Formats: sequence, structure tokens, C-alpha cells
Amino acid sequence: MSTPALPADFLRAIAESFPADFLTREPAELQEYGRDWTRVYAPAPGAVVFPRTTEEVARFVALCHQHRVALVPSGGRTGLAGGAVAMHGEVVLSLKRMTRMEPVDLLGNTVRVQAGAVTEGVHQHCAPHGLTWPVDFASKGSSTVGGNIATNAGGVKVIRYGLTRQWVLGLQVVTAQGQVLELNGALEKNNTGADLRQLFIGSEGTLGVITEATLKLTRLPGKQDVFLFAVPDVAAVLRLFRDARQAPLVLSTYEFFTDKCLARVQRHRKLRSPFEASSGCYVLLESEGGDPAAVEAWLGSLFERGLVTDGTQAQGAAQAQELWSLRESISESLSATGVLHKNDISLPVANLEAFCAELDAIFASRYPGWEICLFGHIGDGNLHVNVMKPDAVEKADFFAHAKQSDHAMFDLVRKHGGSISAEHGIGLLKKDYLDYTRAPGEMELLRTLKRALDPAGILNPGKILDA
Amino acid sequence: MSTPALPADFLRAIAESFPADFLTREPAELQEYGRDWTRVYAPAPGAVVFPRTTEEVARFVALCHQHRVALVPSGGRTGLAGGAVAMHGEVVLSLKRMTRMEPVDLLGNTVRVQAGAVTEGVHQHCAPHGLTWPVDFASKGSSTVGGNIATNAGGVKVIRYGLTRQWVLGLQVVTAQGQVLELNGALEKNNTGADLRQLFIGSEGTLGVITEATLKLTRLPGKQDVFLFAVPDVAAVLRLFRDARQAPLVLSTYEFFTDKCLARVQRHRKLRSPFEASSGCYVLLESEGGDPAAVEAWLGSLFERGLVTDGTQAQGAAQAQELWSLRESISESLSATGVLHKNDISLPVANLEAFCAELDAIFASRYPGWEICLFGHIGDGNLHVNVMKPDAVEKADFFAHAKQSDHAMFDLVRKHGGSISAEHGIGLLKKDYLDYTRAPGEMELLRTLKRALDPAGILNPGKILDA
Repeated sequence: MSTPALPADFLRAIAESFPADFLTREPAELQEYGRDWTRVYAPAPGAVVFPRTTEEVARFVALCHQHRVALVPSGGRTGLAGGAVAMHGEVVLSLKRMTRMEPVDLLGNTVRVQAGAVTEGVHQHCAPHGLTWPVDFASKGSSTVGGNIATNAGGVKVIRYGLTRQWVLGLQVVTAQGQVLELNGALEKNNTGADLRQLFIGSEGTLGVITEATLKLTRLPGKQDVFLFAVPDVAAVLRLFRDARQAPLVLSTYEFFTDKCLARVQRHRKLRSPFEASSGCYVLLESEGGDPAAVEAWLGSLFERGLVTDGTQAQGAAQAQELWSLRESISESLSATGVLHKNDISLPVANLEAFCAELDAIFASRYPGWEICLFGHIGDGNLHVNVMKPDAVEKADFFAHAKQSDHAMFDLVRKHGGSISAEHGIGLLKKDYLDYTRAPGEMELLRTLKRALDPAGILNPGKILDA
Repeated sequence: MSTPALPADFLRAIAESFPADFLTREPAELQEYGRDWTRVYAPAPGAVVFPRTTEEVARFVALCHQHRVALVPSGGRTGLAGGAVAMHGEVVLSLKRMTRMEPVDLLGNTVRVQAGAVTEGVHQHCAPHGLTWPVDFASKGSSTVGGNIATNAGGVKVIRYGLTRQWVLGLQVVTAQGQVLELNGALEKNNTGADLRQLFIGSEGTLGVITEATLKLTRLPGKQDVFLFAVPDVAAVLRLFRDARQAPLVLSTYEFFTDKCLARVQRHRKLRSPFEASSGCYVLLESEGGDPAAVEAWLGSLFERGLVTDGTQAQGAAQAQELWSLRESISESLSATGVLHKNDISLPVANLEAFCAELDAIFASRYPGWEICLFGHIGDGNLHVNVMKPDAVEKADFFAHAKQSDHAMFDLVRKHGGSISAEHGIGLLKKDYLDYTRAPGEMELLRTLKRALDPAGILNPGKILDA
């Protein structure tokens, strides 16, 4: 696709009515702001703009609407699906200057922030009050509130707190026509027709631009216990999960990874496993509360009942961090020790065991002898599936083969009622596979919504759906 | 508005292709199924149909679409805003025969049910497994899953569990064109574009007909403590709330009511107050967990710090039920002891104190000497405002005056960023006031959605928005 030049009268209007530092066409900045963490697409935006206020965003979007200029809303650009990529001359609308955070409301347990506020900054802003916004994942140092909401971000605490959707009380959104909507304010309850917030949460900037949000906060968790268990296989991971959900504690994390993931973490990070013998799978379990004697009795019973083959409980914060490191270093270690093809899928928890068994058969036929590294938020039904490139295979061949083989896996995902993107979104990367998860009627309704809200097609065109 | 007769060829098509007991025009049934608990509107449906399957619903809605016949989806008809009223010859689509519940999925903690399943029936279905669907309110014995979802029902446990929206994993919806959509299945995580479920939750049957749902379940709560506190006024209710949220326990209920409510409960139900002296306001607090010694110390400190003037903790289940009865008997006692005008509003918790102070001034000028009974889920910012008819005022005059005075209160609601309907919805009853909560841009977007999803305007026309 060619990259159309920006209309001269559009650029003139911007020069006339915005500050001098509002727009840049400097090549290094175009490169930087034209891409996200996906690193698959060559960035080619036409310009980047940096508003400071909602009023500037609204005026800018109205101008884009008037001149039919496409724009790409942009936060911390930590996405993994190309949702913030600008590769066809679009204007990147970066929210990076909109980082204001208002004082924490200690009666309502809320905080109002601009969309460019960084996730970790919000955590730090709220922590002195004993409160937190429980949206938490590896990229929290760069990801922004607006990006988290636009992608309905997940993470390692979803089993305890749910997705980002659940922690947004109010949204300020600029529509495709440049109108500012204030949706739901700071209300917990507001049953006055369709909840318009929900349209924009998770829509990846294709239906509106999120400029501010009133975030719902919760108490910082109290003392947490961290455990690592060794179990033989995925079936055992799920047996333990079912048991843990009835245990005398509150689960705040239930993550799993295979021995192949652990081996690469050990290779790359020189971390030690707490176990002498290796095992097929490992479970990182974090819990909150519970009567210590009852928890102790439950732990003892896990061995007696054959639910785990080995296990350890962190004694103190340093050991807890060591156990967490084994899980948190996986992504980085896989990338550092090889070339890989990633997928982020989800299944109904009840179908995980059957799915994984059938997946093994697909891997065996599609990737004979190739290394597969599985890990993920299995308590939410979320698996990160990573195929590692064998040394003997060329990179281009590897990716072509892997992409093609995705169809077989996604067929299986569909068969078991799963999703081809659990938490990473669709963006550009998964667009061609969307109909594995969305039936024709849903695809049509998604298109209907897009046409109704953005008839000129200027908002992040080509993301999720073809422009 | 006149009541159009149903087209003869529509009725013929139904007679030909549905069971004999599918449609009724029997006057007593038209009366019964044409109304909900609002009792304000005269029912006048053209017919009532009782499908047994989603396939029948889809076929019926397609027929309505073809013949441009309006329909009103109908569950337990316990709504308080006229959302299920049929007063213009519409066909009532009752889900009462669709009550199937599948076995509880004990790995995923979910259950799939048809939309006509009764709330309490779902609770009873799940309880033997130690699980519950935490959607709970007074009408649980009649309200249905479909109705709860279509109105995003609230209740007394929202502070702990959130609204119905949060406990729906999958939705099966029949569109205005008679197409069946299966939305989200049994997935916790599924970031594949806009979340279409959310469109239908809380839309009061105006965008689609909910036929089945996969409900998310949670563990039955453990031991719960129930307290009743006496405090002088609303400001004190909120001071105690702020303190309780930082207390060493998990709040599962924070309800308040005024002395005027208590007096009517005592009059009607002959219940005793646990306190010797009367007080301006009372707080019913239910909590879960917490170290007993820490909770004890916190309770003691409430008196020392002057946060409460009196208080009692239920000893055992019978006493807990007695305290709960004081709160749960309010609606019934108000109706039994007088004629009243109700409102169900919400405010940002942080604005409640200022709002209530200004509301007093409005009441003093609008309702001089009239009795106002305030109670509600104050932890969610939700107030039920009840104006009692003075004996000396005629009923018609009273309602005319009260309805007119609502504008003054809703002006104040708008000023403080509140909602004119916290949990009861809009239906017919609050339609004329919707723009106090929804700005013009939101109203337009609501209309855009309605037009996009139901272009022929056959789904519950005239509810929420004018047809």
C-alpha cells in the first residue's frame, strides 16, 4: 500500500492553530512513534502530534475528520499485536504529554488521570494511601492508562481482580467527529441505557480516543504467600487448580510454565530451580489471607493426596521474589535464547485439558522435533504458546511455516470455544485470524459498530478489521 | 397512542409454524404479562408468546422483523421502571418456559442457563457445590437471569461483588433480525475487538433478546459478621464508611437508612430496634473474614473516636436475620404505611455529603413538612429517595407535584455528577429525565446504537429512548 502525503491545507491548519511543538515529521521520531513492541511492521507515519489537553485532541481529531486524515492513537507502545503501528502515512496521536494525575479521592477510592499517565506512576501515586489500581503486568513501567484501557489489558492478577475493564469508572473519549464524551463520571452504579464506556474499552483506538479516565482503586493486598509446586503435566496443573480454588485461602495468582521454559530461564538468567528433580510443569501460586493452620493443613494434604510431586513456600520477600523471577523471566529468556513465534490464546478452563492433549498431536505433526514452550495465566484459561526456531531452519522459512501452522491450532481453539487473542488484542497481527473466534454475525456487528461510530474510517484504520 | 391490531398474516404464520400453546390472546394473560412491578401503566399487549427454545425465539423475532411487529422481551417482570410493560399492542415475548440449567462446571466455576431461569433457582442449583452467582436482591424469587442481565441488576452485595455485568461470561442473544449470536462463550479473557456482550447487558431489551447465558460463579462466602450502628447524620454515615474501608475486614454490605424508615418498619412489622435511644441514621454493615482480635479492637475504637453513638453485633444467625430484617423490610413497610413517590439515584461517593445537604434545602422548599424516607446502598453511592404523601394531600395532586419536583432534585444530581437511575433502569418511567444524566452527545450515541442494531425499531420500542 502506498503512503499518501498529508494534505497541505491540513498541515497549514495545524501550523496555524496549534503550538509550534505540536507536530513533528522528524524521521527518527516517525520511526520511534510509528511502531510498538511487535517489531514486525515497518513504521511509516506521516507525522506525530503531541497534544497537552483534551481540547487539543478534540480540535485535532475534528481537523482529521474534516480532511479525512487517518490517525493512530498512541500510548506507551508496549502492545504485542501492532495496534499502535502507523505504517501507511497516518498521523500518530501520542498522549505522552497528557500525564496529569489528580489527587486520590479517599472517600470514593478513585483517581482521575489523563490517558498518558504511566501504569507504574499510577501505582506509586496511590500506594501512600494504601490503595492501588490493580492492573499489573510486565510493561507497567512504560504502558499507559489509555493504552491499558484501549486494549483491556490483562496480566498476572486477573484471577483475583479481573481485567482492566473492571477498574474503569469514568472515561473521557474524543469521538471520530472530534466531540468530547464524558462517560459515567465517578459512578459505581448508573443504569441509564447501554453502558457506552464499554464500547471503547478494548476497541484498540478504532472507535474513539481515550483522553482521561476515573480509575477505581482497591486496597493494597495484605501479606501474600508465594508457593512453587512441581507437577507432572497440564492435567495435574488443572487438578491442583480445582483443589486450590476450594482451599482455605484467596488465590491472587495461578500461573504455570513447563520444564522447557524453566530450562531457558536457567540458561539465560542463571537462576536456580528450588527443586532437585525436574518435572513436566510448575505452578506459581500466590495467595492472600487464610488461617495459617488451615493453610498448613491444606499444603500437607497436597503431597498426601498426590496433587503435587514437590513444592516450596517462599520464606520472606527475597525468596518470594526469587520464585516470581522464574515466572517473570520467561518472555525475556525465550527471546534471548532463540527466535520464536508467539501466540496468546485462551480456552474455557474446563476445556484446557482436552485442548492441550490435542495440541500435542498438532505440534507433533506440524513441528516435528521443534521445541514448544508453554506458559501462562492458566487460572484464567490463558496460554502463551511459543514455538522456538530450530537452528537448522532459516528464519523466513520458520515464520512462514509457523504462521501457516497457526491455522491448525486456531481450528482447535475454535473447536474448544476459545479465543485467538486472550489479552494481547488483534491489531494488525491477528486480524487475518479474527474469524476463528468471531462468527460471521459477530464480524458483521463489529463492522456495523465501526461504521456507526467512525463513518469516515479515520480512527486507527485497518486495525482489528480491514479498513 | 392507539393500539394497532396485529397483522393477520403475522398471526397466520405463527399459527402455522409454532406449537398451539405458543401464543395467547386471553385477556387475563394479556393483563398479567403486559406489566411489571411498576404498576403505573395500563397493560395492553396484542398477544403473549411463550417459546421453549432459542430456535423458536429466533424464528419468532425474524417473523416480527418481517412484519414490523413490536415485541417486549419479558422475564420475571419485577422491574421498577416499566421496562417490561407492553401498553401499545406489542407482543410480549415471555421467557418463562426457558428455565433449563446445565450442570455446574466445577473446573471453570460457571453454569450455563436459559434466560428464564429464576435467580434464586440458580442460587439453589449452585449452592450444593459451595458456589453462588452473587447477584442478590429482594425479588430473587421471581426475577430471572435474562431480566437481571438486561437491566444489569444491582442489589445489596454490589460493594463486594459488583453489578450483574461482572458475573456474565457468555451471552446468547437473538438480534432484531432474528439472528442468534453466541458472545464470548465461557471465556474469562477474549480481547478480540469490542466486547459485544456489553452492548446487551443493561440495554433493557432494546438491542437484542437474551436467551441464554454462561454465568460466572464464586465461592459461597464464609462466616459473616453483621453489625448495626447508630450515627447522627449522613455525614457520620460517610465518615464511618471511610473508616470501615480501611478496617481489618472485608466489607460485603454497607447499607444505611434514616430514623424515619426505621419508624415505619417498626410500625408495620412490629420489629424492635436494638437501640434504646433513637438516632438520625443507621448503618447495616456486613463483613467477611478478618482477624477476630483486630476486628474487636477496631469496633472498640469506633466508640472511642466518636464515629458511632451506639452499635450492636449479631450473635448468631437469628440475630443477624433480625438486623437484616430492619433493612429489608423498608420498601414493603413504606408501601404498607403510606403512599409514596420513589427515586433511585446515585452519586459519586465523594459528593454524597454535599449532595444530601443541598437536597435537604430542596425538600424543605418543595415538600414543606412532607416526610422524606432515605435509605440505600450508600457504599455504592446509591440512595433510594422516598417522598411520603401527607394525609391532607390528594393522591393525584401528590404525584403531579412529586413528578414535577423531581426536576429540582435531578438538577442537583446532574450538578454533582450523579445518575437519575442507579440500578432500576430507565424503561418508561425515567425516560423523560434521561438527559439529566446523559449529555447530548451520549443521547445521540445511544440513538445511533439503537438505529444500527434495530433499524426497524421492533425491540421494546419506546423504552429508554422514544421510538
